Amino acid sequence: MANHKLWGGRFEASLEGWVEEFGASIGFDYRLAPYDLKGSLAHVQMLGETGIIDADEAQTIQAGLTQLLEEYEAGQISFDVINEDIHMNMEALLTEKIGPVAGKLHTARSRNDQVATDMHLYLKDQLQQIGGKLLHLRQVLLDLAEEHVETVMPGYTHLQHAQPISFAHHLLAYYHMFSRDSQRLAFNLQHTDLSPLGAAALAGTTFPINRERTAELMGFEGIYHNSLDAVSDRDFILEFLSNSSILIMHLSRFCEELINWCSYEYGFVSLSDTFSTGSSIMPQKKNPDMAELIRGKSGRVYGHLISLLTVMKSLPLAYNKDLQEDKEGMFDTVDTIQKSLDIMAGMLASMTVNSQRMLASTQQDFSNATELADYLAKKGLPFREAHEVVGKLVLECSKSDIYLQDIPLERYQEVSVLIEPDIYQALESHIAVQRRNSLGGTGFEQIRLELDRARQELQS
Amino acid sequence: MANHKLWGGRFEASLEGWVEEFGASIGFDYRLAPYDLKGSLAHVQMLGETGIIDADEAQTIQAGLTQLLEEYEAGQISFDVINEDIHMNMEALLTEKIGPVAGKLHTARSRNDQVATDMHLYLKDQLQQIGGKLLHLRQVLLDLAEEHVETVMPGYTHLQHAQPISFAHHLLAYYHMFSRDSQRLAFNLQHTDLSPLGAAALAGTTFPINRERTAELMGFEGIYHNSLDAVSDRDFILEFLSNSSILIMHLSRFCEELINWCSYEYGFVSLSDTFSTGSSIMPQKKNPDMAELIRGKSGRVYGHLISLLTVMKSLPLAYNKDLQEDKEGMFDTVDTIQKSLDIMAGMLASMTVNSQRMLASTQQDFSNATELADYLAKKGLPFREAHEVVGKLVLECSKSDIYLQDIPLERYQEVSVLIEPDIYQALESHIAVQRRNSLGGTGFEQIRLELDRARQELQS
Amino acid sequence: MANHKLWGGRFEASLEGWVEEFGASIGFDYRLAPYDLKGSLAHVQMLGETGIIDADEAQTIQAGLTQLLEEYEAGQISFDVINEDIHMNMEALLTEKIGPVAGKLHTARSRNDQVATDMHLYLKDQLQQIGGKLLHLRQVLLDLAEEHVETVMPGYTHLQHAQPISFAHHLLAYYHMFSRDSQRLAFNLQHTDLSPLGAAALAGTTFPINRERTAELMGFEGIYHNSLDAVSDRDFILEFLSNSSILIMHLSRFCEELINWCSYEYGFVSLSDTFSTGSSIMPQKKNPDMAELIRGKSGRVYGHLISLLTVMKSLPLAYNKDLQEDKEGMFDTVDTIQKSLDIMAGMLASMTVNSQRMLASTQQDFSNATELADYLAKKGLPFREAHEVVGKLVLECSKSDIYLQDIPLERYQEVSVLIEPDIYQALESHIAVQRRNSLGGTGFEQIRLELDRARQELQS
Amino acid sequence: MANHKLWGGRFEASLEGWVEEFGASIGFDYRLAPYDLKGSLAHVQMLGETGIIDADEAQTIQAGLTQLLEEYEAGQISFDVINEDIHMNMEALLTEKIGPVAGKLHTARSRNDQVATDMHLYLKDQLQQIGGKLLHLRQVLLDLAEEHVETVMPGYTHLQHAQPISFAHHLLAYYHMFSRDSQRLAFNLQHTDLSPLGAAALAGTTFPINRERTAELMGFEGIYHNSLDAVSDRDFILEFLSNSSILIMHLSRFCEELINWCSYEYGFVSLSDTFSTGSSIMPQKKNPDMAELIRGKSGRVYGHLISLLTVMKSLPLAYNKDLQEDKEGMFDTVDTIQKSLDIMAGMLASMTVNSQRMLASTQQDFSNATELADYLAKKGLPFREAHEVVGKLVLECSKSDIYLQDIPLERYQEVSVLIEPDIYQALESHIAVQRRNSLGGTGFEQIRLELDRARQELQS
Repeated sequence: MANHKLWGGRFEASLEGWVEEFGASIGFDYRLAPYDLKGSLAHVQMLGETGIIDADEAQTIQAGLTQLLEEYEAGQISFDVINEDIHMNMEALLTEKIGPVAGKLHTARSRNDQVATDMHLYLKDQLQQIGGKLLHLRQVLLDLAEEHVETVMPGYTHLQHAQPISFAHHLLAYYHMFSRDSQRLAFNLQHTDLSPLGAAALAGTTFPINRERTAELMGFEGIYHNSLDAVSDRDFILEFLSNSSILIMHLSRFCEELINWCSYEYGFVSLSDTFSTGSSIMPQKKNPDMAELIRGKSGRVYGHLISLLTVMKSLPLAYNKDLQEDKEGMFDTVDTIQKSLDIMAGMLASMTVNSQRMLASTQQDFSNATELADYLAKKGLPFREAHEVVGKLVLECSKSDIYLQDIPLERYQEVSVLIEPDIYQALESHIAVQRRNSLGGTGFEQIRLELDRARQELQS
Repeated sequence: MANHKLWGGRFEASLEGWVEEFGASIGFDYRLAPYDLKGSLAHVQMLGETGIIDADEAQTIQAGLTQLLEEYEAGQISFDVINEDIHMNMEALLTEKIGPVAGKLHTARSRNDQVATDMHLYLKDQLQQIGGKLLHLRQVLLDLAEEHVETVMPGYTHLQHAQPISFAHHLLAYYHMFSRDSQRLAFNLQHTDLSPLGAAALAGTTFPINRERTAELMGFEGIYHNSLDAVSDRDFILEFLSNSSILIMHLSRFCEELINWCSYEYGFVSLSDTFSTGSSIMPQKKNPDMAELIRGKSGRVYGHLISLLTVMKSLPLAYNKDLQEDKEGMFDTVDTIQKSLDIMAGMLASMTVNSQRMLASTQQDFSNATELADYLAKKGLPFREAHEVVGKLVLECSKSDIYLQDIPLERYQEVSVLIEPDIYQALESHIAVQRRNSLGGTGFEQIRLELDRARQELQS
Repeated sequence: MANHKLWGGRFEASLEGWVEEFGASIGFDYRLAPYDLKGSLAHVQMLGETGIIDADEAQTIQAGLTQLLEEYEAGQISFDVINEDIHMNMEALLTEKIGPVAGKLHTARSRNDQVATDMHLYLKDQLQQIGGKLLHLRQVLLDLAEEHVETVMPGYTHLQHAQPISFAHHLLAYYHMFSRDSQRLAFNLQHTDLSPLGAAALAGTTFPINRERTAELMGFEGIYHNSLDAVSDRDFILEFLSNSSILIMHLSRFCEELINWCSYEYGFVSLSDTFSTGSSIMPQKKNPDMAELIRGKSGRVYGHLISLLTVMKSLPLAYNKDLQEDKEGMFDTVDTIQKSLDIMAGMLASMTVNSQRMLASTQQDFSNATELADYLAKKGLPFREAHEVVGKLVLECSKSDIYLQDIPLERYQEVSVLIEPDIYQALESHIAVQRRNSLGGTGFEQIRLELDRARQELQS
Repeated sequence: MANHKLWGGRFEASLEGWVEEFGASIGFDYRLAPYDLKGSLAHVQMLGETGIIDADEAQTIQAGLTQLLEEYEAGQISFDVINEDIHMNMEALLTEKIGPVAGKLHTARSRNDQVATDMHLYLKDQLQQIGGKLLHLRQVLLDLAEEHVETVMPGYTHLQHAQPISFAHHLLAYYHMFSRDSQRLAFNLQHTDLSPLGAAALAGTTFPINRERTAELMGFEGIYHNSLDAVSDRDFILEFLSNSSILIMHLSRFCEELINWCSYEYGFVSLSDTFSTGSSIMPQKKNPDMAELIRGKSGRVYGHLISLLTVMKSLPLAYNKDLQEDKEGMFDTVDTIQKSLDIMAGMLASMTVNSQRMLASTQQDFSNATELADYLAKKGLPFREAHEVVGKLVLECSKSDIYLQDIPLERYQEVSVLIEPDIYQALESHIAVQRRNSLGGTGFEQIRLELDRARQELQS
């Protein structure tokens, strides 16, 4: 079997099957197939152009690669674990097709720069796809927010009712998180959109290659300027895993809230049947499975990040086999993020919002306590004293099971002569939201301004 | 499609395909198939014995399950993503085989306790297999150590030559790490060897089930004593992932050393061709790929640990869909650990040790400096002063490019009258090793005692 | 300055202050002070007993150490960053006190085995303290559960009402988690309760030391049997960090529930003022800060675990300076776990349970749907069909905003002739809980049995 | 005690000391003191300008704050755990100084937006400092590289000699990693340089504040546009922790190489005494402690990243006390990165490079095997065949313990008629490096071009 290996000359004994399988990556790097072919196409064209190989040899190889690409896209190619990885599989398939001239494709190239090239091409493509899905999700949020500018709900801190807010305001908070995610992915693209091809094994090559030409043919913005760095850098993947961790963290927060909101206790929203599942034993159950799953998938993305950071820790230059461990986590993260974004957008677009229940829950609570304190502060009481006064009234109310809006005017005026009949309006949650009209605040007017700003941002 | 679902009664709209796929686990939990069948066999036998279902219904179901198990083992079963998970797939297959009576199998059981049961059965089995492989690795280490009791090599601290040691002593350090790993897995088994079956969805059941009977039929040592805990506990998996992280950390240390040892600079060992690979561009390369891969795989195991810890963080009781994320990491860790142990054992058993090179490298260094300091201390010089004297001699030597054994006696006696001609023997590395004969030290006699102790430990 | 260093003989230039500070550990390892002194006391006694140093020298050193220990306990000792770490600080203090004979204390010992010894002594002590606090928390849970055997609350899966359960049952689920934590710490103690002293720098020593004697004097159960392992093993700390991660994960789940339970939406419990805080701006707020903090502290413990795993990854034998990074995370984890356990116990013992609200919330929901399905199944309908029937009834109810207990008998009998008037009793949540009397289930009788079992477990 | 609390009105019982201490953050957030004062100064100026408080009140408060800032900078302020956090401590100090008017400072502000503001101010400052240190390190690398353009050393893959390279080329690989780190920190600054002030507790405020004015006064580039996001966003810290993880990973790789290079086996460099330490037992030791420590510190930075990701996972909006856990990890990471960069730069600038030893190690190995293969490929042999031929020659050589340069011409010509006498020049390592002159390759000419490019980059 050893003679099947493209690197076998120096070896006397062969790898055994089970050992071989441990080292083989074809079980997952097959996903790089189209990128590998595109990279090879660019490489061979350059080899021909520079005269490193004969023009007709280059043409033969190009024809073979083009055919392989077509067959791949038609789902007609299968790979063999004997050939270790996607690169050797492709070379073996090419050799089958065009004979020994296939061997010239590997001139002035190594698997070290080849795999790095494949990874850059792959991730660039995926970053663009994820970018599109993020944009869609942000769009969905804006549409939903637009419908709910005047939907009043409790705003929470410490999961306690704090102050009433607009539901749109809550949704826009997530819009902003996802906007930053978009920016991070755009930055990530800069370190991904670089060609390592031509770094060869680690040190560059003695052949008169043209790296800028292959970069151009593959559509890269730039090239790596140090060959050791080119084959050993995985920063662009680590950036992707970090950015994905932050993104899935945002999703996990949103899903936690959805799960709360569709619980019996909250009843704020109802997920569509499409995004819910039942129980094999409890016939009444309508579970927010999809939201729970996305929340749970934060674990796997964090895990992939820590995996690659661990792999890279204290790894000497340049290429080491440990680096093969960079792929599965990246592939799985790409899948996880793409699917989670789709599900999230679908779930939000199809859910039913129970605005009445949201509003009602701000009318039987103490979330208007700040209104009373601000009311007093505006009439000149130092804020700290106003806070103290209101605190005592809340305690008094909760003992007799009433709310601030239920306190008679006389009692108010005993407590402070500053309190007048207009206090009852100030305590209404709708009014309270409206009046919190500072820049970026929950006031309806502010939200409308921010919606416009966001629409413009999305269009540009 | 909705009506295929075993929980569909309450639902009006159906899951869409792509959403369904996101929630489906059959893509990975098919690995639980035989355990799921064994659990069902025990459950139905108990249902029959207790009269919860009729004896003949129980027999029909048992016959169906047994047949499915045979078909599974013969590789004749295939699963369908429409049926979400392994449990629903099995029930669908059973229904095909024996008709609607299959529906009675799920009496007094829920998927929540069922999947927990499968996981316990699966991990118990794997822990035993891994235990066996660890034992084998420890055996290989003892065999190798036995051959190398008197092979002298540099002992390192800070990757600097510190004191000469026996190669067997170095190997036995790893033996002890792996012994602790064995103990941890044995402890892990205690929390795995428990039956959750009968916890039903979360609260137990109104049916007169016999949980101790099903536990006995499945071969479990004990049962869970709280149904909420039974369906939501994943401690046994977290223990496995922690223990595996420590184990792969040990392997990563050993592999780092092997990679060093087979480098040009060390040349202490040579790996067999079976465990080495070449380069597609550099014909001379013989790379310790397997050692690098195992070292790198520490990343994935650490990642799986952090994944599940993240999933579990702040998850309310009892079952939540997030828990479905417990499986892939566990499966992958089982595979990684099993294969890494096999490769490690094979790599050690087949490598060539270059004892001459090891010894030589202790004869042209300063790793005998402690000998000189101890020599002086034993003659009464406070250790701190002895240390100072030797430090200065080392500096003096390194300036004239000689070693301590090359200093003439006159010079020694200028430095300290305590130094006599027997110093030269004390400075020989073989002697230095031999004399470090404290309990657990590197002295040859100690190593032989420890080898005996270890042999006895392994046999018991 | 260089001459202050106990290892300075070989060096020409000295460390600069800021570099020195980077390497110094006295800023945190001062916590090892009493353990370091105890280790030194045992070591010097053995040195005297074996005649490695003179008996009177040993006595002088012992007297000095004893005095230092007294001064330390009286808070009269201060350390100096010039002396790098706790070991050198202690030696410097001892030298001040008894003169150059102090230098003999370091005979047959190295900082490598000394620091390992300190860490084992320290962690052993802390494991015992944490064990006591865990026991106390479990006690508090049992006391609370005893009061609430018949307190009915909704049992949740997917945060949806699933089936009614006993509040005691819910509490006991945590009791079982903490029991496993206790077992893990007890196991952890086994690998901690071992003496590394005598391993010296890495290879043992040529002095005729008695390691079993020092182990006995320090109260250790056993010794390390390989000197390289003794100085480089950090498994016992990794076990502690893993076990602590699982423990704090349990606490984070419990705290998440407490935070939910004391929210406006649930209102199940009310935390005492002692364990709540207010808002600087919102006078009504009573925040479950302590529960939130404990939940958040899961992050730091997970972080410390991953830190040490990262440090250890691919670290060659034996001692490397990287290992100094083992301490801060361990110290912080010890503090975090101890305080979190205390706070948790205090919070539970002082909270007010709103049993009425819990019960009420099981009377206006569909958590009795399983009762109806089981009712039908027991009358012979295959469970899957019963499930389907009930699912449809739930859908029907929710459209007309009623519950299963509100459906008139006629409608029931239209749906299935199996349904008789006794259905209404079966649908009551208190009855539903009572009847779920399978082993480990939520039935009151079962809970009383489990409480007894737990009491006995705690007493033994 | 309760009346000391600024939020105490609603409370009947007070926090107990030990509970209070658990919740208090003053033990670490005192580091925010100057930033807290700067934020307050901007806030009060705006309050005065907008007439929210009287101009003279504003002036009184400003005077008090200015005085506090001076006292802080003079080290005259001390904090009290009774006052929980830095904000309450500052308010208490201000009240002491100027009386109850101090209470007006908190108008239209909450601790939620205040702490977020402090964190943004702090991290912005630190990012700029770290940026400067990174620039310095890159400068040091360029200076060192400039000296070593023609210093030839082995290039490694799989830690095996692969192809000879220039030492400058190796250094420049790290230069490029650190350049990307600089870019990441610059991007990080964008999400840090935003003002959350004015978001108040979570929803904005009813007071007519001017957020753009306070942002301008504090020197921020922009503001948060959603108040919920403003108080709950920690992305900017997560970005910092991710970027720091990648940076310390680079340092860990470099340190691993330095540790290898200054080992007995390599002998490529010698660290200055300033950056080395000795052993308390082995007088000859000169340990690369600083490099080991930096390598080990990767653990703590990774840990802090995973900590905060864990804290944020599934945390509902808006502020929760869990968020207090964001600080210590950030502070420690700032310290770790700053010190590690300083040490790294100092270590590199002061180390001695043993160029002779590096070169020698490329003259007695097979790292010129690619030269021979390329030589054959250029003469028309398909690369795969050339590779095979050379592989066999290497095996042949290694059996007779010679190198490729030692094979006589006759033997070469037996193997292939393409090989002519000029082969011997091609096999020289210095020539081999020089000829690898592809863009970004190790050829001396390329390196000089890249050095120029880098110099220009640094200057801009």
